[in-house]
Amino acid sequence: MPAWPEVRRTDAVMADGRSLAYYDRPGAPPRDDIDSRPRDEAAPESQLRRDPLTGEWAIIAGHRQARTFQPTAQETRTHGCPLCPSTPDHATEIPAADYQVVIFDNRFPSLTRTAAGMETADERPGIGRCQVVCFTDDHDAHLADLGDDRVLLIVQAWADTVARLREDSRLVSCLVFENRGAEIGVTMSHPHGQVYAYPFLPPRERLLLDAAARHHADTGRILALDVADAEARDGVRLLAATDHWTAHVPRAARWPFEMRITPRRAITSLDDLNADEAADFAALYPRLLRALDGVYDMRMPYVAAWHQAPLAGVAPGAQLFLEVFSTRRAPDRLKYPAGSESAAGVWINDIAPERSAAMLREALG
Amino acid sequence: MPAWPEVRRTDAVMADGRSLAYYDRPGAPPRDDIDSRPRDEAAPESQLRRDPLTGEWAIIAGHRQARTFQPTAQETRTHGCPLCPSTPDHATEIPAADYQVVIFDNRFPSLTRTAAGMETADERPGIGRCQVVCFTDDHDAHLADLGDDRVLLIVQAWADTVARLREDSRLVSCLVFENRGAEIGVTMSHPHGQVYAYPFLPPRERLLLDAAARHHADTGRILALDVADAEARDGVRLLAATDHWTAHVPRAARWPFEMRITPRRAITSLDDLNADEAADFAALYPRLLRALDGVYDMRMPYVAAWHQAPLAGVAPGAQLFLEVFSTRRAPDRLKYPAGSESAAGVWINDIAPERSAAMLREALG
Repeated sequence: MPAWPEVRRTDAVMADGRSLAYYDRPGAPPRDDIDSRPRDEAAPESQLRRDPLTGEWAIIAGHRQARTFQPTAQETRTHGCPLCPSTPDHATEIPAADYQVVIFDNRFPSLTRTAAGMETADERPGIGRCQVVCFTDDHDAHLADLGDDRVLLIVQAWADTVARLREDSRLVSCLVFENRGAEIGVTMSHPHGQVYAYPFLPPRERLLLDAAARHHADTGRILALDVADAEARDGVRLLAATDHWTAHVPRAARWPFEMRITPRRAITSLDDLNADEAADFAALYPRLLRALDGVYDMRMPYVAAWHQAPLAGVAPGAQLFLEVFSTRRAPDRLKYPAGSESAAGVWINDIAPERSAAMLREALG
Repeated sequence: MPAWPEVRRTDAVMADGRSLAYYDRPGAPPRDDIDSRPRDEAAPESQLRRDPLTGEWAIIAGHRQARTFQPTAQETRTHGCPLCPSTPDHATEIPAADYQVVIFDNRFPSLTRTAAGMETADERPGIGRCQVVCFTDDHDAHLADLGDDRVLLIVQAWADTVARLREDSRLVSCLVFENRGAEIGVTMSHPHGQVYAYPFLPPRERLLLDAAARHHADTGRILALDVADAEARDGVRLLAATDHWTAHVPRAARWPFEMRITPRRAITSLDDLNADEAADFAALYPRLLRALDGVYDMRMPYVAAWHQAPLAGVAPGAQLFLEVFSTRRAPDRLKYPAGSESAAGVWINDIAPERSAAMLREALG
């Protein structure tokens, strides 16, 4: 088995105390730049509140609204992108003059490690962690075009981040994801993803884990692997089958274009991937993203999110997989979750998964 | 107790066999106009598919995508609004030359009474019903501005529609809702709502019913009434308390602006409202919608949806209430459900409910 390509992590602390980690291939300059910006005001606080009528927790992060109205003096001066490298005239979130991959604590986090406050049956401090993952220092790039080695470095950075999150026992589950496109509300176009660590099991992860556990109890098998294998055999919704991954459109897809990218081996988390699997993914994933953009020959808005087992404990039958979906259903139409989706929780998909799979396969070439 | 204002229902059949019902106050002309349009092609079919990984059903309605690309010859000729009354030159969905309130089967339904097909553990025909509720024949009006008597007529039409849906034992749950605003994907600006009848219990209704049943078993009380009463006493998130209704922002609101409008009496469904309650609602609801528009002095996109008990059977502790939410969090910003919301099911609200309640109260005047 080939070894992992070498990666150097450099940890740094930002002016206001937030953590930042550079991930570099050998040969990169030392990452010893200092964040010289003036310190921000007090750390934001958020709260978890449970809706008694549904039993579900929501994150109330009132301080985040301020980010719309109150750019800092620094931002007002420069109008610059906060995710670009710093220049002598423009100090950004990343002190270095260039970088490869950087992960740092979000300046406007929904959840923080320092949240404090009352704890009742329906109310808890917003303990957790929200990190930003910068994929490249090139403001105009897209993940799909970065090249295999950079995607592999990103996978290594994700895996390391997940492993580090396990050290905080208050964190229960983490979501590694990318939102792309102004059409879904992304305000910063610099290529980046996010990591959210929640202090509870999110409802959709619970559904996935419950179904996986039932199947495992009934059959001793991994549900997501059985489904991916069946899709690979059937072929009608299959997008790609490589040595280590299966990519398919789900039979009950909720969104106009939706993919599941599943390792062929039973793996519960990003930090369980081996070097072969990661390298194979790094070659496959950009192709799939380019196919998504190829369907209508335009940049598609998308959400890409890794589903993983909880950060601690046993999760029988759980399986790592990447879910990617786009809300664009036509060159001039988006799918919005409205009444049926938001109020009742029932998704309506106007494109048959077999048809979207055929369109994606054609774009894959 | 005052009697219900008189309403006359006239049932009609559209050229392609769909049902249409006029709801009129006394004095309206007879509704005997004939739908003279050429018949459409075969009825659309949709399918329910269960995602084995989550256990949830999605509606796959591949025929609906066609509505984007293939306007009928009729539509191409007129470019008219299909929800306006018909004129000699423009035959619409409503044959009459004027109307008050009309409810008819959606031409592009996600679910139909005639759906057929295979039935397996993960696949069922898309049995159900999707109806359109036209609130007025005035294309440029908004529900909030129609006047109390029209809103009352709409409530009467909703209640009658729910009662009629109970006659089809295949229908399990119905959602009476309005999506308003291009910002959430509404393509027809003519003021209208919808009714969806599902052949299964939607996941969010199940959450509501489960929590209600637990509370009822524990206390013998109605959870949604207890919550609304507590909000009325507390006041910080209260919007209005009338003789028959309580309106408040939920403590764990998922959306920037969100209201729950709850009858003060234990009622499970729209067709259980009495005349006093309906009249009181008809006076209150337009005020609340105008307050929503008043917050930023602009028309707000919103989803308004009635939560009710299932169409048949016993639902201990279930309570009718209306949920209204807007995705607009600032004059120039919308909240989009992206990674955390769509992939994990965890909502992040950037406006504290106490703050949005204060803003709404100020707009209420």
